[in-house]
Amino acid sequence: MQDYFSVRWKNGVVRMLDQRLLPGELKYYDFVKCTEVAMAIKQMVIRGAPAIGIAAGYGLALAAVHSRATQSNELIRELRRDADELWQSRPTAVNLFAAINRILGLVVDNHDLGLEQIKSTVLSEADKIANEDLQMNRKIGLNGQQFIPEEANIIHHCNTGALATGGYGTALGVIRTAHEMGKKIHVYVDETRPRLQGARLTSWELKQLEIPHTVIVDGASGYFMQHTKINACLVGCDRIAANGDVANKIGTYNLALVAFAHGVPFYSVGPRTSIDLSVTRGDEIPIEERSAIEITHIGQTQVTPDDVLVANPAFDITPAKYISAIITDAGVAFPPYEKTLLELMSK
Amino acid sequence: MQDYFSVRWKNGVVRMLDQRLLPGELKYYDFVKCTEVAMAIKQMVIRGAPAIGIAAGYGLALAAVHSRATQSNELIRELRRDADELWQSRPTAVNLFAAINRILGLVVDNHDLGLEQIKSTVLSEADKIANEDLQMNRKIGLNGQQFIPEEANIIHHCNTGALATGGYGTALGVIRTAHEMGKKIHVYVDETRPRLQGARLTSWELKQLEIPHTVIVDGASGYFMQHTKINACLVGCDRIAANGDVANKIGTYNLALVAFAHGVPFYSVGPRTSIDLSVTRGDEIPIEERSAIEITHIGQTQVTPDDVLVANPAFDITPAKYISAIITDAGVAFPPYEKTLLELMSK
Repeated sequence: MQDYFSVRWKNGVVRMLDQRLLPGELKYYDFVKCTEVAMAIKQMVIRGAPAIGIAAGYGLALAAVHSRATQSNELIRELRRDADELWQSRPTAVNLFAAINRILGLVVDNHDLGLEQIKSTVLSEADKIANEDLQMNRKIGLNGQQFIPEEANIIHHCNTGALATGGYGTALGVIRTAHEMGKKIHVYVDETRPRLQGARLTSWELKQLEIPHTVIVDGASGYFMQHTKINACLVGCDRIAANGDVANKIGTYNLALVAFAHGVPFYSVGPRTSIDLSVTRGDEIPIEERSAIEITHIGQTQVTPDDVLVANPAFDITPAKYISAIITDAGVAFPPYEKTLLELMSK
Repeated sequence: MQDYFSVRWKNGVVRMLDQRLLPGELKYYDFVKCTEVAMAIKQMVIRGAPAIGIAAGYGLALAAVHSRATQSNELIRELRRDADELWQSRPTAVNLFAAINRILGLVVDNHDLGLEQIKSTVLSEADKIANEDLQMNRKIGLNGQQFIPEEANIIHHCNTGALATGGYGTALGVIRTAHEMGKKIHVYVDETRPRLQGARLTSWELKQLEIPHTVIVDGASGYFMQHTKINACLVGCDRIAANGDVANKIGTYNLALVAFAHGVPFYSVGPRTSIDLSVTRGDEIPIEERSAIEITHIGQTQVTPDDVLVANPAFDITPAKYISAIITDAGVAFPPYEKTLLELMSK
């Protein structure tokens, strides 16, 4: 198995794997400025809601550690400016905003500390976010086992593995834990157009982990539910509204409807921090519209006619009624989600 | 508008557009042997159930016209051999088998005719198949209008236009007729993985026809049904079973389930010759499994890890209960299809 990670802090540098080049090339960048991290998030060098949150934390750590500010107030102003840029990088996943708020909140609470103490606070909080995520992934993996029988065929959408998180994975973490426990798992990997995170990243991670899997096109999930016993669909989540509606990668909602028609359980999997009680319903979550080129071109190949009109929403909202359970590190929520998500957040 | 056609007979030659190169390149091949036509069908130089049937007819015409047989029996033996090869080229669409049976049946019925008469019979029957298809498309276009309001947003899967037929189109023919009648149509074009017939071919045809359209990934149809008033889904059909189950391009079934969940009418559109009363239910229709490379590579770009396992069924079966109506040249069939398809075939 190839050792790999999505984002790490090392000696004042943020090292980040360029996921756009996988599986063909394993290339890491070293960033020393927060603006580089913001650009990397925007351009999807890194993606996956938890990984984006961690990267944002380390982005602020870069800003702090390399600051030439001579006063605490000056440093805090710089951090706010950099936080603003990070804030603008992606609109849908809540983890980004949660990480920024968490670090800025801590800084503001401790603005009377000395310069060096603020710097070390920012870095240690960023480290905490990353480490907590890894621990949460492990718990998620265990909490999901009640839904995974000894032999299971699972459909998975997008990428939710170590690449999308601080390590280990969320929905893929559940799959990984099942495999480590000796369960006999076969994963049907939705290729996940337009960016092919399933075909490129999930199949690559499953290969490293030696978990049997088959790549399929997104439109074939119904075919496989007709022809094979599919035990569960497992997907990640970029943000969960208070009513249990889930924002996740485009194509998730279609998969949920197909699963529903077949009576296949459909699970949203993520850290508790993906729950955003400040949004009542899914349709309040902003959906990022990405560049047409993700659909018109694949690699260097143009597949559509010139000047074609394209719509490319990066996420969709799956209404709560199609979600069998929401699996988090803090426990599993079942419908009615208005009640159970509140309980989960109060734990 | 660029003039184009999928397959034509001209002076002893079958001219065929290489649809694999569209929209980048408009390249025609001239074939003089039936085996070349069979290979072109197999390799999907040409695709689309009606177009495949027409190509097969002209393939047999090439075999007949260029035969060096000196006796009728010898010619008929040659035709049977070539028909066998055509028969093996693609398994799912019924039009291929219908065209071969129609021509061979006629030849056998007229085996006492002279050599030249048999040759001209084969060619004129192949011409008839092509011309009838064009006429059927026109009728289909008109028969579908009752379902298309004056302003309509339509989701379309795969390609069902002039490229897929003898000209004009089936599901796309309904859209085209609506546009020609002055209805205000916007088409959401499923890109249709893995071969991207929507992104590559349908958007190209709609551009020639100046019909407004937007290309989307297959997984986004639910998103657009949530955000836009979609009036109908229109798809083609490769074979229709006696109970109304429809075999069509992979992804059709998912789209049907998504439409069903949203109460969006879902129409299967094709010539009456797509109905195959010899198969009782959809699960009796053989589904072609195509090469993994259609999923692992796009153009020259490999998108998956080496040696990944891929499943690539080219078609799926949409159960009759998800189909609002079947639109054909001979009229429109509504549920219960066991009864109405029989009536349609007896007309």
